[in-house]
Parts: sequence; C-alpha cells; structure tokens
Amino acid sequence: MNHTAAELAKYLGAKLQGDGSLALTGVAGPENATATDLIYLDAPKFAARIEKSAAKCVLAPPSTRVAGKTILEVSDPKFAFAKAAAWLLPHATPKSAIHPTAIVSPTAKIAENVSIAPYAVIEEETEIGAGTTIGAHAFIGRASRIGTNCILHPRVTLYAGARLGDRVEIHSGAVIGSDGFGYVFGHASGEDRYWKFPQVGRIEIADDVEIGANTTIDRGSLETTQIAAGVKIDNLVQVAHNVRIGEHTVIAAQTGISGSSTIGKRAIIGGQVGIADHCKLEDGAIAGAQAGIPTGKTIRGGQIVWGTPARPLEKFKEQYAWFARLPELAERVRKLESTTIAKAQHTETD
Amino acid sequence: MNHTAAELAKYLGAKLQGDGSLALTGVAGPENATATDLIYLDAPKFAARIEKSAAKCVLAPPSTRVAGKTILEVSDPKFAFAKAAAWLLPHATPKSAIHPTAIVSPTAKIAENVSIAPYAVIEEETEIGAGTTIGAHAFIGRASRIGTNCILHPRVTLYAGARLGDRVEIHSGAVIGSDGFGYVFGHASGEDRYWKFPQVGRIEIADDVEIGANTTIDRGSLETTQIAAGVKIDNLVQVAHNVRIGEHTVIAAQTGISGSSTIGKRAIIGGQVGIADHCKLEDGAIAGAQAGIPTGKTIRGGQIVWGTPARPLEKFKEQYAWFARLPELAERVRKLESTTIAKAQHTETD
Amino acid sequence: MNHTAAELAKYLGAKLQGDGSLALTGVAGPENATATDLIYLDAPKFAARIEKSAAKCVLAPPSTRVAGKTILEVSDPKFAFAKAAAWLLPHATPKSAIHPTAIVSPTAKIAENVSIAPYAVIEEETEIGAGTTIGAHAFIGRASRIGTNCILHPRVTLYAGARLGDRVEIHSGAVIGSDGFGYVFGHASGEDRYWKFPQVGRIEIADDVEIGANTTIDRGSLETTQIAAGVKIDNLVQVAHNVRIGEHTVIAAQTGISGSSTIGKRAIIGGQVGIADHCKLEDGAIAGAQAGIPTGKTIRGGQIVWGTPARPLEKFKEQYAWFARLPELAERVRKLESTTIAKAQHTETD
Repeated sequence: MNHTAAELAKYLGAKLQGDGSLALTGVAGPENATATDLIYLDAPKFAARIEKSAAKCVLAPPSTRVAGKTILEVSDPKFAFAKAAAWLLPHATPKSAIHPTAIVSPTAKIAENVSIAPYAVIEEETEIGAGTTIGAHAFIGRASRIGTNCILHPRVTLYAGARLGDRVEIHSGAVIGSDGFGYVFGHASGEDRYWKFPQVGRIEIADDVEIGANTTIDRGSLETTQIAAGVKIDNLVQVAHNVRIGEHTVIAAQTGISGSSTIGKRAIIGGQVGIADHCKLEDGAIAGAQAGIPTGKTIRGGQIVWGTPARPLEKFKEQYAWFARLPELAERVRKLESTTIAKAQHTETD
Repeated sequence: MNHTAAELAKYLGAKLQGDGSLALTGVAGPENATATDLIYLDAPKFAARIEKSAAKCVLAPPSTRVAGKTILEVSDPKFAFAKAAAWLLPHATPKSAIHPTAIVSPTAKIAENVSIAPYAVIEEETEIGAGTTIGAHAFIGRASRIGTNCILHPRVTLYAGARLGDRVEIHSGAVIGSDGFGYVFGHASGEDRYWKFPQVGRIEIADDVEIGANTTIDRGSLETTQIAAGVKIDNLVQVAHNVRIGEHTVIAAQTGISGSSTIGKRAIIGGQVGIADHCKLEDGAIAGAQAGIPTGKTIRGGQIVWGTPARPLEKFKEQYAWFARLPELAERVRKLESTTIAKAQHTETD
Repeated sequence: MNHTAAELAKYLGAKLQGDGSLALTGVAGPENATATDLIYLDAPKFAARIEKSAAKCVLAPPSTRVAGKTILEVSDPKFAFAKAAAWLLPHATPKSAIHPTAIVSPTAKIAENVSIAPYAVIEEETEIGAGTTIGAHAFIGRASRIGTNCILHPRVTLYAGARLGDRVEIHSGAVIGSDGFGYVFGHASGEDRYWKFPQVGRIEIADDVEIGANTTIDRGSLETTQIAAGVKIDNLVQVAHNVRIGEHTVIAAQTGISGSSTIGKRAIIGGQVGIADHCKLEDGAIAGAQAGIPTGKTIRGGQIVWGTPARPLEKFKEQYAWFARLPELAERVRKLESTTIAKAQHTETD
C-alpha cells in the first residue's frame, strides 16, 4: 500500500514543506533511491549530497531547504527515518500457511495467521502465537513457546522448553537454549575426568528482542537465562547459562558473556567484548569494543570502560598515553641516571 | 524411574542423615526445586539459603545439618551433584527409530537402537553406532563414522570422512570437518592470486567429547585434526586444521586455535583466547580469558598465562600494576627532573 | 582420471628428474602418502624427512635429489603443490541432479549441470549458474543470484537478494545477507526504546571468494556490502553492513568488521581482529591477530599493525618491551629518588 508525504508527516508529527501528495513506497540512501523512496538528511550542511538524488521527499532538520525536494522537518531525522521505515514497510501479517513439508506435532498449538516454511520441525507441546513466521529448516523443540508476531528466519534452533515473547526476531543459524558449559572435575573422588554439571534450567526471551545470525544463547544450568524486553543482540554473540540481560541493552557482534553475569538496562556492549562469570554491569554501563571484564567485577551505572582488564575510559586513556610514551619516559630516566651519577662524581671531587 | 535417597547414598558412597526412603526424580536449584528434586550445598555457612527450599534431600559437606532435610554427606557436594544428576537423569537409550523423512543411504551401516530425526541426511558408506541419536536436519557426510551412544543435536554437520568416538555430544549448528584456511599466493610464479592449499586431511574426535553450538572444527590439510577423549569445547570455538588437543582439556567459548597448534592434556583455555599457529601448550597449561599466544610459542606445563602477548600471570600482574600507575611514575620522573635541574642550577651558582 | 609425473611437470613448467611415467592420483603429506600421491619438499635440508615416504614423486627446489624419488624442480614447491592439487583433484562438474526433496520454485532459473541436494529450498526468482552445487538443507532466498561453478556446502543460508559471482565456495552454516545491526534510540522523541534502522541494502560477493563455516555477512543497510574477487574469509568471521573488502584480501577466523569499514586489496587480517566502524585499511595493510582498530581509524597501505588500539608493529614492539620492563624501570626511578634525596640532604648539610 502506498502512502503520501502528507500522511507520513502526520504520522511523524513533522512539518511539511512542499508537495504533500508525493507517493512514498520505500526508503533508501540518496544515491540509489527512486522517486518514491524516502531519504533523510542528518544535518543541513550535507544538503548538497542529496540534491542530485532521484528521491523527492526528505526527512531533514527544521528550516532545511533543498531545491526540488519536499522536506519533512523533524528534530532527529535518522530516528524519524527508522520510524518511517517501519511504517512504510511493515512486516506483513502472514496468512495461515503451513507448508506441507513442515512437520508439526499434533500436540502443538498453532495460532491463526502463522506461517511455517518448508522443512520446519515443530515438536510436541509447543505453542506458536498469532502472526508469527517460522522460517525454513527451523527446529522448535518440545514444549517451546513462541509469542505473537515473531519472525524466526530460516534455520533457527530452539532447544526444548525455550520461551519467546512477542515480536521477537531471530536470524538464521541462531541457537537458543543449548546446554551451558559447566563441568566438575573429579579431584575429590580421585576420578580423572569431568562430569557435566546438570544443564536443566530455562531460557526466557522477552518481547521485542532481536537476535543475530549464528548467535548462541544457553539455557540456565539450574536457574534461568533471561533476556529482557527490547534487547538487541548482534551476530555470533555467546550468552552463557544463567546470564540476565536488562531491558533495551544492545550487544554488538562476537561479544561473549560468561555464566551467571548480569547486565542492567540500556547498557551498551561493543563488539568482541568478553565478560567473565559472575560480573555485574549496572544500568547504562558501556563497555568498549574488545574490553575484558574479569570474574566477579562490577561496572557502575553509566560508567564507560575499555581495555583488558577493563577500567574507566578516562583512566585507560591516561594510562595508555603514558604507555605510548614509555620509550620516551625510559630515556628520561636514563638521562637522570647519567646526570645524577655525573653529579655524584662531581660532588665527590668537590 | 524413581530412586530413593538411600539408593543415591549408596551410589555415591555418601553417609545418609535422615529419611532414606525419600523419592528422587531430578535435580534443581534450591529456589525452584520440588520435593523430589535433589539439591546441593557448597558449604555449611550457606545452609540458611536452602532451609526454605521445597527440596527434601541435600548433598552437603560432612556434619551439615539443616532442619527438615535429609542430608547425604559428601566431601565435594558439587561434584557429587553432577554425578548424581547423570545417574538420576540418564540419556535414555533411543529405540530404533528412523523418521521416514530421514534420507539414509542404502550403503550406510546403522546399528541397533539408533534414532534419526526428521530431515536428517546420512550419506553413503557412513557408520552409526548403537544407541546414537541423530537430530533433525543433521548432515552426515559420506564415509563418516559415528560411535555408540552419541548425541548429535539438530542441525549438526559432519563433512565427509569425519570420525567420532563413543558418547560424543555435539550441539546444534556445529560444523565438523570443514576445509582449513590455507592458501598460497602466487608470488613465485608471478600469479596475482591465491591458490588453495589442499585440505584433504582427516578429523578424529575421541570418546566423551562435548562440542558446543555453532563451533567449527576443520579437518586436517594433509594431516589429521585430533580431539582426544574427554575434551569439552564450548560454543563458537574455532579449531583449525591439524590442531591436536589432549585428553580432558576444556576450552571456553569463542576461543580460536590456529593451524598445527597442539594443546596437552587437562589444559584449561578461557573464553576468547587466541592461539596462533604452531603453538604448544603443554599438559595442564592455563590460558586466561582473551589471552593471545603468538605464533610458535610454547606454554610450559601447569603455567598460567594472561594478556596479549601471553605471559605468566604473576608477571602480567606485576607489569600491569605498574601500567596502572604509569601516570604516577611519570609524575615522579618529572619531579626528579625539576629537582635535578634546580640542583644543577644551584650547584652552578655555588 | 590419472595423470603422470611428466604431464604434471609440463603443466607446472617444472624440470623433471626421474621417471616421467609415474602415475599420480592425489596429494598427501609424506607420512601418509601412497605411491601415487604427490608430495612436496620446502627446502633441500628437509630431504631426509621424505626419503622414507611411500610417495614416488616430489615437488622440490632446483637441484634437490632424493634417493628413489622422481623430482619435479620448481622455485616455490608449496605454491606448485597447491596448483598441482587443484589440477589433480578438480571439482567435478556436477551432472544435472535435483534431488526430489529439494524445493525449487517454478520461477527459479536453474542452469545446466546444477546439483541440488536433499531438502534444499530455492525460492522464487532465483538464478543458479551452470556447474554449481547446492548442498543439503541450503536455503536460497528470493531473487538471489548464484554464478557458475559455485559450491555451497550443506546448510548455507542466503537471505533474499544475495548476489554471488562465479566459483564462489561457501562452507556449512554461513549466513549471507542477514540484517545489519543498526538501531536508533528514541531520545529525540522521548520514546524509551530502539527503532531498527532499515536494513534493506544489498550484498554482493564477487568471483573466486571462499567463505568459512558459520561466518556471517550482513547485507547493507541502505547501501551494499561488497566482497571483491578472490577474497578468502575463514570460519566464524563477522562482516557487518556496508563493509567493502578489496580483491585478494584474506581474513582469518573470528575477526569482526564493523559497519561501513573498508578494507583494500591484498590486505591480511589475522584471527580475532576487531575493526570498528568507519575504518579504512588501505591496500596491503596487515593487522596482527587480536588487533583492535578504533572507530574511523585509517591504516596506511602496507603497514603492519598490532595491539589494541592498533599501532605500527615496530612501535608496539618498542612500547611493549618497556612495558615488560616496567617493574625494573620503576625500581630505577626509586633509586634515583633515594639518591637525589640523600644528596639533597647531604648538600643541605654542606
């Protein structure tokens, strides 16, 4: 369904400058947009970049004017663009369509308007909510529960008993609810081998969570691994058993979170961060890319840390500045030594 | 099948204090246990934590007494708990059950009591041992051999010719036997491109190995990648061609081991560790999380290393302590300089 | 088809010393070679290692002589070995064979001699070029285009619209074209949640690219993620939206490249390297294992960098050498302080 610039202005609460009847069918970057794509402009100074775009409708800061373009004035164009995209390109509600090759247990409860793609396997006692799409080759283990309007891309695996809220999106290859990594070595009893610690806990993923491709999230060992509402997790992230992640926290690619660590709300975790076991990142904590947070460490609310072992960013910068100047510092010490010795000799000959 | 506290005490060699006729059906944490779940207590000082648990039977250190609980006295309760869990919740031997949608080559040799789930593909000349479970969407490449009582979770891939021992457990999405990463650039012949070095070696995984979700283990190039008995590998780990890992070594998530490195027995490798090519970690070596071990380096038996480049933990701590005090050290050098110069000037005016 | 040593000598332009009629059927390492396997010798000093090999034909540097072996003299034996392997063991062109369980859309254009394995799903409007092999459980999303002579191993996922060139090889579990990780927090409008930035761009992978197992490559957000010809990417690598990688660049396992970064031609990226967003690595840049390149940083052509934050290797070595000697340097400062103070006291008593 097409929309007009005027309708979008109304939806966003934006001020319209230009032709409100313009049709809008999608979003794009300025260089590859068509006439009916919406584009956006971060700051008026970049206006030249978009003058030659084929797009006719532009989200831009107040008072922006670009020759030949209809402007929707908004205070934060990038944010408005994201919101507009979701409005222009909504996930279509699937029609009830279970592919004949999908294997759905007779005891599974499948709501209305659920789409299940070829070769998906839906085990017994599962529940899938209305409007949810299950991709090809997905595996939904026994007694899992999936909420409404979720999207599981092809080849997602849920181990038995996983719980997903509403509007959860999981990308291909992600594994949800696998066994945690816990073993006990038989020192005490003189047994020269590991025994697996039981991994029989649960995994709960709340509403509006998005999980990246090939990410792995283990179930709890005896407790529950919990991902709160609005959390966004990138590709190839590892979340271990009993981890709890608070609302609206974002975690970039290849980060690993070890067993029983907790992360607060609205935290931001960069790429390749390593969080050891039993850590606590309070609300709003920020861990820079590749930071390493040692076992049991607490990062205070709103604090920004970097490095391994992680420390406050300003400390890291100060320490690192001296690290980079170490050869110079060493040379200064050498000079002091030669001066002091020279003087000592001089003094002795006084 | 239910067991009693007395039977478990006998199995573990534990001293029973209380009601030996208590039924036991599972294991749990104190907070979510039912009356028939076994729980454990690490140390007597935590006894208060478990008093209000619904569980009635507790593994605990000798002489522990908790009101209303039956105690099984053991020297290492956590270890006993792991062992008890395996005893109370054994992997059921599957009945011979090959799902009609599984594609099993006529030349595959499938033993008794093998379970093969929907849409698994078992290629020609494979062998699968008794009691093994093959999950949905698994791919077992040509001429692979899988031992007895293995569990391959859904969506495991074995490239052609992989060898697994007995009681191997592989989690979803793991890829075993993919091509190693080896190329030769055509400098010598003036060809401006890479040629792939042949990756035609083997991959052998011994008994009692567990491999995490989405982990990748490459076959050898001309030799054999070898994972010895009892090795435990977490999620998203990369094991390159020709790597050899000794018995009962554990490797945490997202660690990468480069080509032709060898790791001894009972080594412990933390998360996100990087081991470059041709390294040697001797028996019992320990690499802390995020450690980076440079090409060709040897880590001695029992040594604990940390940092990049990895060095002995005590050295790292000493160096790092000074790193954290670098701004202070620099200030001390500055003071020395001003004193020395002041003195020099003073001396000159003597 | 068998070849002879003389034929191989001709193909490689090598000088033959010995029996040109020897049959060659494969390649191997000296220890596990059969009589008809080709082996190679890096340097004459290692000749003893190969004397006892069962192999009869050896690629070796000029003037190498080994008792009982036929020698093909080449300037770079390892390179010649890789080339010989590709010649002796070519990927067989598949016969046109679409497994009856493969689900191929009637609107898909499948060229001749394409092999599609069991349970592959090929969506509408896709194109697959001649000689390409699609593995079991592969998912080829709507409107994807795959060139000629590609190999997609079992369980590869292409999201809708992915483009692959010719002779592309993708290993199991790789996900191509997943959504990038981009969100905008609703600060501006007072909304306490993230909106997803549209991820509607493209993904283009050129000729002769190889991609490792469980690697993830996101499509562009509004632009295009581009992997140029001849690029080799190892297992578990993350390539984010809008990244561009130049020709013949190699990227080792578990490296992550963040959004909108560009990497030039013939660059070499070690394992577990982290490249933040909007970085630029120029042609021939080399990033050592675990290096961390901060946001927006440029690495000059041909430069070798290491460490986090990454700096030129020689600088890293110099700084690190002093880091390792920090305790010693601190002790020297302490001595200077005691000398200076002692002297100051001495001077005062003059």
